[in-house]
Formats: sequence, structure tokens, C-alpha cells
Amino acid sequence: MIFSGQYGAVLTIDLHAIASNFRFLKSMSSSAECAAVVKCNAYGLGIKQVGQTLLREGCRAFFVASSSEALSLKRALLEIHKDFEIYILNGFERDFPEIYDTSIAPVLNSLEDIRRWVELSKSKRELLSAIANFDTGMNRLGLDKSETAEILGSSLSPDHSKISILMSHLACSEDPEHRLNHEQFRAFSSIVAKSKNRFRYSLANSGGVFLGKKYHFDLVRPGAALFGIGNFANRYTNLRQVVTLKAKILQTRSIDAGVTVGYGATQAVNRKSRLATVALGYGDGIFRGLTNAGFGYLSGYPAQIIGRVSMDLVTLDVTDIPQSLSQPGYWVEFIGEHQTPDSLAQRAGTIGYEVLTALGSRYERIYLGR
Amino acid sequence: MIFSGQYGAVLTIDLHAIASNFRFLKSMSSSAECAAVVKCNAYGLGIKQVGQTLLREGCRAFFVASSSEALSLKRALLEIHKDFEIYILNGFERDFPEIYDTSIAPVLNSLEDIRRWVELSKSKRELLSAIANFDTGMNRLGLDKSETAEILGSSLSPDHSKISILMSHLACSEDPEHRLNHEQFRAFSSIVAKSKNRFRYSLANSGGVFLGKKYHFDLVRPGAALFGIGNFANRYTNLRQVVTLKAKILQTRSIDAGVTVGYGATQAVNRKSRLATVALGYGDGIFRGLTNAGFGYLSGYPAQIIGRVSMDLVTLDVTDIPQSLSQPGYWVEFIGEHQTPDSLAQRAGTIGYEVLTALGSRYERIYLGR
Repeated sequence: MIFSGQYGAVLTIDLHAIASNFRFLKSMSSSAECAAVVKCNAYGLGIKQVGQTLLREGCRAFFVASSSEALSLKRALLEIHKDFEIYILNGFERDFPEIYDTSIAPVLNSLEDIRRWVELSKSKRELLSAIANFDTGMNRLGLDKSETAEILGSSLSPDHSKISILMSHLACSEDPEHRLNHEQFRAFSSIVAKSKNRFRYSLANSGGVFLGKKYHFDLVRPGAALFGIGNFANRYTNLRQVVTLKAKILQTRSIDAGVTVGYGATQAVNRKSRLATVALGYGDGIFRGLTNAGFGYLSGYPAQIIGRVSMDLVTLDVTDIPQSLSQPGYWVEFIGEHQTPDSLAQRAGTIGYEVLTALGSRYERIYLGR
Repeated sequence: MIFSGQYGAVLTIDLHAIASNFRFLKSMSSSAECAAVVKCNAYGLGIKQVGQTLLREGCRAFFVASSSEALSLKRALLEIHKDFEIYILNGFERDFPEIYDTSIAPVLNSLEDIRRWVELSKSKRELLSAIANFDTGMNRLGLDKSETAEILGSSLSPDHSKISILMSHLACSEDPEHRLNHEQFRAFSSIVAKSKNRFRYSLANSGGVFLGKKYHFDLVRPGAALFGIGNFANRYTNLRQVVTLKAKILQTRSIDAGVTVGYGATQAVNRKSRLATVALGYGDGIFRGLTNAGFGYLSGYPAQIIGRVSMDLVTLDVTDIPQSLSQPGYWVEFIGEHQTPDSLAQRAGTIGYEVLTALGSRYERIYLGR
């Protein structure tokens, strides 16, 4: 299979698979609404294409990290229709409150955030209601225990009419057995009770969806599972893989036993070897940590990375692969049928999430199902 | 120092420093011409801004990895003037030979590449001369020993009038003591002798520049050193740092001893602690490998990353930092005066090169000296 064009590597993103994963997550979410977390350029896969796909699939609520991401997403979604809500996870943006309107609202992470939001909502009538985020064990963002006690004890009152959802975030939901899941569930349930059921409630990220009905409340917020990554991808075969990454062989060569390959001359081969140098490197998210450890696949045959991964190139040991399958111009799979983002990640000591967000911008990007 | 705007983090790129590094490298290059390697979007720092800066500084020869990079660079350089040469390192582009013209030529890595180039140059008169690349120990790209013997033994002849430079690439030049430097020098010198001095010659990358005059030949090709990274940056204080990366504190909180932080609840604090959550994460190139290991700096005070780096956020232990210096809205330095790309990299088990190319696109980018 030979592609043409000016790129040495091709990233294929299957929007059908993302839509299918959204439908599956929805089917697993009891009666809760299913939102989508599309921060970090939709986990590196393209905020515009992914956002539009999910909106067409019936998703209405979207979560992003920052104001700039919210603006990109809004622009993309408006091309389809205007019935959507975007929530910015990083808190009230004090330097740029102009961003809030009928489609963009903050996730409020502190009493100070809430105070500023209440103030803004007095001066600006046309606003999407915000979300208040309570920390129940992640210790990252959200109202802490004393802030939670203060606001629930006093006045989630008419003043707070522009807050419609209370949420929290699970720290360990990828591990269904982790004690923290239940502790966070209990802490959040107490918030629900004390707020007298006057709001909608949201606790579950991707992992939370698979923890079962009691974790679902009114709104679930999967991210990773939409993109076929995370350990739930192994547990639920209905979750489809989304990404294929292939790169071209630029050159092959034979070297004698004892010869070293690449920068730093880190590893000498112990036999006469055939090598294939491929057009992608750590500048494309093939982590330098995959040096002498990662694999590419040629027609299903695994070929180990040999020598240091460099910025634009990796070299594979193709000694055991038929020469007819490993010629210049042929394509090597780094993510796809034989290697998921999670399994590539494991060899680099990280997780599939970081593989996706590190993919970089030098690929030809092909979207299936647009 | 409070910045405004829609971004949680600000990346400052000092074009003056890049220009200064170019001048320094030129001064260290004997009588050789000093080219610039600006592949991978100029090591992540912006091909347009960096390319234009170097062209204004008198650089004429540029090296990129791929055809798409060559086209971006050409577009940027033409805004200044048209006296430049761009060489594509990844070899003859058989799928897109239309790219070659009076300003873009390939680095030819095999006899097959050379054959195709000779063929093309017969049918197309207006072409920049190409470079032939000989492998002398890197074993990645370039003519291998037998190809080298074949072409030098026969006919670097009128047929090859559209090849003007012979090059090779050093694998271990960052280590001035490495035996391979001298072996590669000897192999390349033999190529020079056998080609009867009818070409221009190029061997040195950044490290090669600092190996001394005999490594310089006619053209040197620094990349990393232009951007203030690589171990030469420690050895030559004239090389200036180029990048500053700061991110905003979104929220601070106090937690009790024994409480865990972040995904997976990986680490419990052993004392009552103050935490600051900051608006950047592995989605921005702050590698997940910095979990419980990396540092940010507040007014010069080091603050360790605590818990897992997440996609959009890191949490720092600011217990020992004056509260007046660690409030929401304040900025934390991740790269700058207190931490170079190389020292950040070291804590993540990689090199400054990968730090730069992983920086991502969610920053507000400020260019100094444009």
C-alpha cells in the first residue's frame, strides 16, 4: 500500500468509531444525559471534526479545559446548529469574562469563582447556567471541604440561580476496585442530599460510567472512552479503536554484527541485521522512551525499534521480516490493528491518553466518516 | 506578574537569542558556511518566525525533514527575499517530485535516490543542486559502504552536475570524547579524497561545530545549539536560552497529612500541605513522566509536582513557599531562568530536544524581537 503526497506518515481518525463509542457510552449511562469531554483538541484528534461528529450524534453538553478551546469548539459547532452547551473545566476566567454567553459557561472551582460568577450574572442576563465543582478526593480543582460546608450550610439560594449542575471528579475510576471510588461516591451523595435535590448532578467520567448506575446521577462526562483508550477499552469490546498511524519506510540497509545504530551508538546488533528507517520520530509523538523498546508492524510482523528514536526518524530491525514486505515506500503501522494507543503507551511507560495528545502536527490527517 | 487573556500558559520565544546563537555558531565555524536545521517546526518554536529571523541574520541554507516542512518554510522566507536554499533530509520524494525547484532540493540517501534525481534533472533545467548523504556510522539514512564505494569508484561525473554538496551525519558529536567521532571523520575524509575535491563538503551538526576546525569542512549544520539545548549549552555560555514557559495557578488548597493527590491516588503527603494547581499538563508537553518528580518555580522557589501530571493540569507542593507568592492568578515558571529545557528533560528521563518538540499548541506564544 503506497500513499502519495508530501507527508511521511498518515494518521487516520475514524469518526464513525467515535460516534459508535458515544452511542455505546450513552447506552451504558442509565437515564443520565451523556456529555463529551473534548479538551486538548479532542485528545489530539481534532476539536472541529470530533465536536461536529458528536453534535450530530445528539450530544449537547461539551467539556473543554480552557477559554481558547471553548472558542474553537463553539465556532465548529455553530456550523451545524446552535443547540449546545460548552463548559470550561479550568474555572472562572477572571481575565476574560466576556467569553461567557448563552453557550459557554464555567465550571466553578471555588467560593471565589462562585462569587465572581454571581456578580457577573447580575450584570449580564443572557448566560448559560454554570456548574459548581466539589472536590471529593482528587485534590486538584474544586471547592474543598470547608468551602463545601460553607456554601451548602448557607445559601445555594436564588443568588445561585445561574448554577444548574453540581459535579465532582473521580480520581481512580479506571480501577473499579479502588476504595476511593466509594469514598468519593459517599461524599458526593452527601452534597446531593444537602443541596436538597434542587440541581442536576454529575460525577462520572469514562471510568465512572462503567462503575454502574448509582454513579451516573443526571449527567455523565466520558472523554477517554470516546476515543477508545483507557483500560475500559480492554474490558468493553464494544468500544472501538479510533486511530491508525502509519509511516513510510524511507530506506533499508544491512549491517554487520557488532555495529551500532543511531545517536549515542547505544546498542550494537548481535547478528548481521537488516534495518528499515521510517519517517516519524519523537517530534511526532513516538516517544524517545521507546528507544530500543517500541515496535512497528509490517503486514502484521512486529519489528523492534533499534537505537535511539530521533526527532524525525526511527529505525526498525526488520531482519526477521520477509524482504518483500519491508521495502522503501512501504508503510509501517505504529497504531492500529496490531497496537492500540494503550499498548504503545505501555512500552513507553505511559498511558494511551498521552500517546494521543502527543501525536503532533506533521501527519497527513485523514478523517473517516466525515 | 499577571497576564490577561484566554490562555492558561504563556510560551515566550526569544528570536534575539536565536539570532545571537546563530552568530556565535558562525564565529565557531572557521571559514565554513553556517546553515540552520529547522526541522519539526524549528524544534517546535515556529518555522515562520525562526526561519525569517535566521534569513535576516544572513543564513542562506536551511535543512528540514519533509516536503511539507519545506513548503511552509519557503512560503515564510519568500516574505523576506528569495536568496535561500532549502534541503529536505528525508531523501528524494518519489511521490512528489514537483516540489523541487530553484530553492528546494533533496538530500539524496541512496543510489536509487541519486538515480531518480539525475533523471529528474535531465527533464527539469531549473533546479537547486542537491546534497548526497553518505552514512559513516549513524546507520539511519545515507549511502551505505558498498553504495559509497560504487559511486566513488565509478562516476561522480557530469551526470551528477546537479549534486553540489557531499555530507555525512555524526552520531555522537555531543560527546567530544566518543571514539565514533574520529572514525566518522576518517571515513568522511576518505570520501572527500576519493571525490577529488570537486564538491563542497559538510559533516558537522551542532556538536560537530564544537569538535573543532577539522570537522567543519565547507558547511556546518547546527540545529539544537541554535535553540540553546544540548549539552554544548552547558559548555558554551555564549549560547543563550531561547524559551520561557509560564503557567497560571488556577487554585490553591490545604490538605491534611495522609491525603492523596490526583489520578490513581499515587502519593499521600506526609504532612499538612498547601497545593497549587496549575494550568498545563502532559497535553502541553509537561510529560506524564514528571509525576511526583518535576518542578515549577515561583519567584525562584522550587515547587515539586505532586501526584500524577494530568492532561491539562499539574499540582505543585507549595507548602514551603510564602503564601504571598503562590496565589491563584500568579505564574509558575516551568522553563526559564531556573530550569532549562535540558534540566526539565533530565527529570523526565529525556533530552531538551523532546521537551521543545512536545510543547504543543495550547500556549499563548509571544515572540520577542520580531
